[in-house]
Amino acid sequence: MKQYTSVHDVTDLDALVKEALQLKENPSQHKSLGQNKTLGLIFLNPSLRTRLSTQKAALNLGMNVMVMNLDKEGWALETEDGAIMNGTTVEHIKEAAAVMGQYCDIIGIRSFPKLQNRDEDYSEYLLHKFISYAKVPIVSLESATRHPLQSLADLLTIKENTPAGKRPKVVLSWAPHVKAIPQCVANSFAEWMQQADVELVITHPEGYDLAEEFTKGATVTTNQDEALQNADYVYVKNWSSYTQYGKVLTDGAGWMMTNEKLALTNNAKVMHCLPVRRNVELSDEILDGPDSLVLEQANNRTFAAQAVLKRMLENL
Amino acid sequence: MKQYTSVHDVTDLDALVKEALQLKENPSQHKSLGQNKTLGLIFLNPSLRTRLSTQKAALNLGMNVMVMNLDKEGWALETEDGAIMNGTTVEHIKEAAAVMGQYCDIIGIRSFPKLQNRDEDYSEYLLHKFISYAKVPIVSLESATRHPLQSLADLLTIKENTPAGKRPKVVLSWAPHVKAIPQCVANSFAEWMQQADVELVITHPEGYDLAEEFTKGATVTTNQDEALQNADYVYVKNWSSYTQYGKVLTDGAGWMMTNEKLALTNNAKVMHCLPVRRNVELSDEILDGPDSLVLEQANNRTFAAQAVLKRMLENL
Amino acid sequence: MKQYTSVHDVTDLDALVKEALQLKENPSQHKSLGQNKTLGLIFLNPSLRTRLSTQKAALNLGMNVMVMNLDKEGWALETEDGAIMNGTTVEHIKEAAAVMGQYCDIIGIRSFPKLQNRDEDYSEYLLHKFISYAKVPIVSLESATRHPLQSLADLLTIKENTPAGKRPKVVLSWAPHVKAIPQCVANSFAEWMQQADVELVITHPEGYDLAEEFTKGATVTTNQDEALQNADYVYVKNWSSYTQYGKVLTDGAGWMMTNEKLALTNNAKVMHCLPVRRNVELSDEILDGPDSLVLEQANNRTFAAQAVLKRMLENL
Repeated sequence: MKQYTSVHDVTDLDALVKEALQLKENPSQHKSLGQNKTLGLIFLNPSLRTRLSTQKAALNLGMNVMVMNLDKEGWALETEDGAIMNGTTVEHIKEAAAVMGQYCDIIGIRSFPKLQNRDEDYSEYLLHKFISYAKVPIVSLESATRHPLQSLADLLTIKENTPAGKRPKVVLSWAPHVKAIPQCVANSFAEWMQQADVELVITHPEGYDLAEEFTKGATVTTNQDEALQNADYVYVKNWSSYTQYGKVLTDGAGWMMTNEKLALTNNAKVMHCLPVRRNVELSDEILDGPDSLVLEQANNRTFAAQAVLKRMLENL
Repeated sequence: MKQYTSVHDVTDLDALVKEALQLKENPSQHKSLGQNKTLGLIFLNPSLRTRLSTQKAALNLGMNVMVMNLDKEGWALETEDGAIMNGTTVEHIKEAAAVMGQYCDIIGIRSFPKLQNRDEDYSEYLLHKFISYAKVPIVSLESATRHPLQSLADLLTIKENTPAGKRPKVVLSWAPHVKAIPQCVANSFAEWMQQADVELVITHPEGYDLAEEFTKGATVTTNQDEALQNADYVYVKNWSSYTQYGKVLTDGAGWMMTNEKLALTNNAKVMHCLPVRRNVELSDEILDGPDSLVLEQANNRTFAAQAVLKRMLENL
Repeated sequence: MKQYTSVHDVTDLDALVKEALQLKENPSQHKSLGQNKTLGLIFLNPSLRTRLSTQKAALNLGMNVMVMNLDKEGWALETEDGAIMNGTTVEHIKEAAAVMGQYCDIIGIRSFPKLQNRDEDYSEYLLHKFISYAKVPIVSLESATRHPLQSLADLLTIKENTPAGKRPKVVLSWAPHVKAIPQCVANSFAEWMQQADVELVITHPEGYDLAEEFTKGATVTTNQDEALQNADYVYVKNWSSYTQYGKVLTDGAGWMMTNEKLALTNNAKVMHCLPVRRNVELSDEILDGPDSLVLEQANNRTFAAQAVLKRMLENL
């Protein structure tokens, strides 16, 4: 694996899932694989789960890890070609990525969208430039449009909780939030579910349609109650508008997931990528109850990252 | 050992002290004990000695270490049960602690008091919630009311400097400072000294009484000169008022420790947890002279942490 | 090697260069040398290359590494002797350095000049105090007046690109910038080149003379075109005025290095320490063309650091 930025970088999804679950049984079994290999983790934004689980995954594989908060411990990067750098950006991504690629065997990078210019964000220019200049395998730790390590962990969690042979109904249900949130997790989850053996339904208020590249093939409805009927999994997540890009169009009254709404489902398990705004996106009763999978998802982040890093290490 | 938050978590204090001093002689002797085990160090506040000495202790035991400045690299935690999280807190401690507990075998956490609401601070709600949700052994790296790794290092230092069989007189002497400082180090030192074979005297200006749970059994006086008579150790430390909670009641003129005051003692050794405000809490002449133990205390931080981590590792 | 703060700390420069280039061929060959040894990297300023390459060097040698951003994760240090610390500095360098020296076998420290008081900066008081209190070998990660790990990497790069037996002409050419930059890299490069088998010419606008201790023996001219004649290497770098200390005296129009200027040289290779302001200091055409050595320089940072750390480890 040369890069891991979306489900499209995975050639055999079933095999990757199987490998991740097998690593979970004995995380230290490939400790010699990462010997003398270095993972660089570059953060341009805050992170808790991704920061710790990806480190843990690398340590399980015997790698060295160097973490850098580029925004705080370094400086602002220029990404525009031909820029006359007489402003606030201190280093061009051409040099920064190339240099980090010389020090690291694999690099993970997190860079959120600015939510100001849709074409710019959706071009994934920063991620693509980083890949092209760093010249080593790159793992997305969440980019402008996707969060593929989260999505793999989500799929692992669904696999573990679904009886063999069953094709579950999975509902991605928009939830309220207090600020404008990227579409990444929702885009990515939709994209991954389309590749998995599930029935995907997406529900959200008017104006919150995701980009078609992620949702085509899925059922999309603004009727949450209808969507929840017979659901086996409900994935709760806020995102800001894609069509009115980056805008918050509604306070989302009535869209918070509650046990009352879950009564419509087939005893659905509830998922969220975390961090979650309690009693805004999801009620306490669900998060503290037996149907929440949120901690299992977070735990699976380690093994998702480990499976990806293992494939990259095998390919170095 | 399942948690290390105060002296009350230590079942056999003499044995722990002995073990720490034995580790100091050969710090790498148990390098295989921590193999494939991960220590997470979570800081909600700045740290120098605790940050480095606890890392060092874990590395001496062969552990992996992941350090996270939760306040800067992550986000603000909600601690109130039932909160509607539509404000500035991004993640509830329920999820954050549980997730970190999945990635780490042992967690150290530092969280200072806010010094605004005494009942809240003294309930140690954050530490207790963290322990209850993380489900792995927790080491306090200084909490709202105590600093037990410091206190163990202090006790090690006293042991090393006291002739066998002698019961030293130890004086905890309040010192001036330029801002409101928590009572943690003073509370903790008092609590530990009560469990050790020493005579404890506490001296401070009017209005600076510590909470009785930490001081009962000790002699407390506002007469510093009287307190210093025949002292073998003088532990210098500022703290803000417990009774008028978090307030600075005096500029403390005359309370700075100097060689002149030390003349009243039995050639006392001088202690401080560091960082120290030179010529405010303690005079240069003492810190640069032969009676200061402050660097020995700092050095013993490594072995205090190592003894605690070793016990936790043996118990995993 | 007890300290590495300038070329004057190197007893046999040729041997050090040879060793670094030999380490580059097989970076993990001395993995057991650093076993149970700890490198502390202390940053008082941002860093990318130095942060990552020095970590990488230490990991290649099997060392443990603890990184601390003292300014952000800790607090402000007092450096004045006898200070009454009732202001914003929280800990004196006497204690901070001594304590860190107890936890680390070798310490690297980065501390930029303030560019306000020349005598203060050029006294290197912080670095010297740190060395004297820490009591362990100290590596400068860039100090007030020099950047010796960069200079060693620069020399390695020149060695690798120069045919045996040739004495190249090396031109250090001042470049424009948008803010006041220390003289460190320029000072240090000049100092190192004087010890190497090269002809050094320095060119800069009026008012930008470097301190004589670094440049004596070199040809200095304000005529850039003349300087570039027959150059084999052009090292491009901005610095603020030494004589009108820390001031920016000109916008430097016409001083940016371009292919047109390079036409005057002997097919010179172009060097810069990075980060570089594209199209301000150096044109895109050079950085993206075949004559740029900037990435080779950055790559050699690892092996420069590794050679220095290896010598210190052998001496512990």
